[in-house]
Amino acid sequence: MGFNLAAHVRAGLPNPAPAPFKGFAPYYFIGGNNAGEALPIPELIDAATRALEKEGRNLAIYNLQTGPQGYRPLREWLVKRLKSWCQMDVTVDNILLTSGSLQALDLVHQVLLDPGDVVVVEGGTYGGTMSRLKDSKAEYVGVAMDDDGIIPAELEKVLAQIKAQGKRCKYVYTIPTVQNPTGTIMSLERRHALLEIARKHDLMIFEDDCYADLIWTGKRPPSIYSLDTEGRVVYCGSFSKSIAPALRVGYLVAKWDFIAQALPCKTDAGSGALEQTTLAMFCEQHFDAHVAKLTALFKQKCDAIQDALHESFGTAAEFRPPEGGIFIWVTVPEEVDTTKLAQAAAAAGVAINPGREWVADPESGKHSFRLCFGQPSFEQIKVGVAKLAEVCHEQFGVPLRSGNIERS
Amino acid sequence: MGFNLAAHVRAGLPNPAPAPFKGFAPYYFIGGNNAGEALPIPELIDAATRALEKEGRNLAIYNLQTGPQGYRPLREWLVKRLKSWCQMDVTVDNILLTSGSLQALDLVHQVLLDPGDVVVVEGGTYGGTMSRLKDSKAEYVGVAMDDDGIIPAELEKVLAQIKAQGKRCKYVYTIPTVQNPTGTIMSLERRHALLEIARKHDLMIFEDDCYADLIWTGKRPPSIYSLDTEGRVVYCGSFSKSIAPALRVGYLVAKWDFIAQALPCKTDAGSGALEQTTLAMFCEQHFDAHVAKLTALFKQKCDAIQDALHESFGTAAEFRPPEGGIFIWVTVPEEVDTTKLAQAAAAAGVAINPGREWVADPESGKHSFRLCFGQPSFEQIKVGVAKLAEVCHEQFGVPLRSGNIERS
Repeated sequence: MGFNLAAHVRAGLPNPAPAPFKGFAPYYFIGGNNAGEALPIPELIDAATRALEKEGRNLAIYNLQTGPQGYRPLREWLVKRLKSWCQMDVTVDNILLTSGSLQALDLVHQVLLDPGDVVVVEGGTYGGTMSRLKDSKAEYVGVAMDDDGIIPAELEKVLAQIKAQGKRCKYVYTIPTVQNPTGTIMSLERRHALLEIARKHDLMIFEDDCYADLIWTGKRPPSIYSLDTEGRVVYCGSFSKSIAPALRVGYLVAKWDFIAQALPCKTDAGSGALEQTTLAMFCEQHFDAHVAKLTALFKQKCDAIQDALHESFGTAAEFRPPEGGIFIWVTVPEEVDTTKLAQAAAAAGVAINPGREWVADPESGKHSFRLCFGQPSFEQIKVGVAKLAEVCHEQFGVPLRSGNIERS
Repeated sequence: MGFNLAAHVRAGLPNPAPAPFKGFAPYYFIGGNNAGEALPIPELIDAATRALEKEGRNLAIYNLQTGPQGYRPLREWLVKRLKSWCQMDVTVDNILLTSGSLQALDLVHQVLLDPGDVVVVEGGTYGGTMSRLKDSKAEYVGVAMDDDGIIPAELEKVLAQIKAQGKRCKYVYTIPTVQNPTGTIMSLERRHALLEIARKHDLMIFEDDCYADLIWTGKRPPSIYSLDTEGRVVYCGSFSKSIAPALRVGYLVAKWDFIAQALPCKTDAGSGALEQTTLAMFCEQHFDAHVAKLTALFKQKCDAIQDALHESFGTAAEFRPPEGGIFIWVTVPEEVDTTKLAQAAAAAGVAINPGREWVADPESGKHSFRLCFGQPSFEQIKVGVAKLAEVCHEQFGVPLRSGNIERS
């Protein structure tokens, strides 16, 4: 009898990967990728060189001898940045550097969630959070938003329903500043209202600020964390969107008692130190200037994708102009099923996120999709959106005339 | 009512960290740290510079556009290295780069283990593996070893016991090449015998080769993976011991069907790319020469710690000279409880691993301890071991006269 792996794997394993990686679609509007052309390579080389000169020998020690919370000078820089940008008063002991903000999500789930607990999320929210909550056997439920963020009365309704079902809501997960996928920014008033509701129901709030560095106006409300006086809020951020996602450096910010609970759950013997030290050197000198330039580029790409949507979809594509970030949320007429659209578009070389994967209630995302515009070139944006419209026209008769036909 | 975190955390959470990191003990003989003085800083700077010149712009893309298995040129280098060093015939599709070999351990556990499954380990084994198995609610049981590795007849006995208990053994976890903690190398004959038993009982084998680059003679038997024709063996290795642990780059090697199952369990959106690209550049030019020099240094440190044990403990310390690696397993007379010794030594500034934490059956490690000698200087080795003997003398009257007394 030969060996059969299927007889050895655990029950309930996710589906296996179908094949080794074959490369991206030519028009790739998914994934939180960044703009390669904006990466300041000479400055990064200089930062890596200085990092290795200063800390190279310490790479021989797990965590560079600065402990499991990560490279201390990077935490020191973050303390200053979080104060000036988000009005947060924290010390290095409140910061845990993580392998991307995804590890921060995992740690928060691990510290807080028992099976069956409920997490309240925004009606549209990050797909990776929802898939993680499913894996952790917690439940999630969405709350309606408007342009100012979660609607307090709707949140109260949802909390009452959870209570009526005999379930417990552990926390509200929110992306208040450049919301994913809507690109909105929660107003200060709503931040206070959300905190007030959390106090009233004794909930925690998990504030995911991953895209918050990228705001067109360069102005933002204080973080919810900064408005909290009790330790009810945990916060995460990332260098993926401001610098580069392949570096895998994020951070969790919380009161020490929460960090103390997260540390024994972080069983990876530390996150990558060459990346942390290089970022520390880079950020001290170049972060603000780089992010200003990067944001200006993303604003241009955001304008370009809106122009392309107008041109190729006409009135068939509705969207709210994002206030920052790298994605736009588009709604099309109800005859278009965007899950089917995404499949047909993929066959034509255009990758998009169908709306169902980016909303808490899948039905509510049926006629929407998300486009990421950070990585594609201006040419790819123009041609890719035109191709998407062409596929949509072929499949659903929407828009009435596709971009290509109009141009011919 | 104020906020109380304890009312919100999940049930069964590990104990919180007692306080932020305060630094290491002055004489630090624990943790798989490397020799900082041996790190080739100029070569690493050159490698990082070339990595950023070649791949810098791709940092803007998750996984550098080379897919979730990690940076392809580093996998290509590993294909060559695994062939020449371990006689393994693999392709880049058989390699998954991980955030340290700890992530490889986690992935193997996630793919294979249902709660209640049993893993057979060597009688003395890596503490981090046992703590992970506990967390995954699997059981583990140890098998007696001699200098050639696991004793086949003992393995058969243990497997019969597991079967008699109505339980299922999923795999044998082994560190055959520079065993942790004994520093032995499993003979070729035993490797074949282990595979034969695995076939007979339809088990898998998980071969952890993390320390295998560091062998005094520079010669080693083929990996168990290379002797397997069925896909019954999964293998992991690491750059932590050969280059630097703070880089967090390890690798899992397996047939594609196993990799395909591991990929969806690796939910971190990729491991650090600056570290992978820098290693790829470094290894292609410098790996062999660096490892030869590093191993020679470790051999000197290994000799130094044996001399120090002879000098300070005399006949009260028994050990087998390691055949490679960075640690030595020491057994002391039965009046010494090494858990208590470790506590008293810590108070005197000397950190050691008490034996109980490094064996499957805690009672069998009661009178042993592990000393890591990779990181401490020659002076720290000499003074630290003398201090340890002094504490041991004070606490247990063993050795009869402590090193300091002898020298005075």
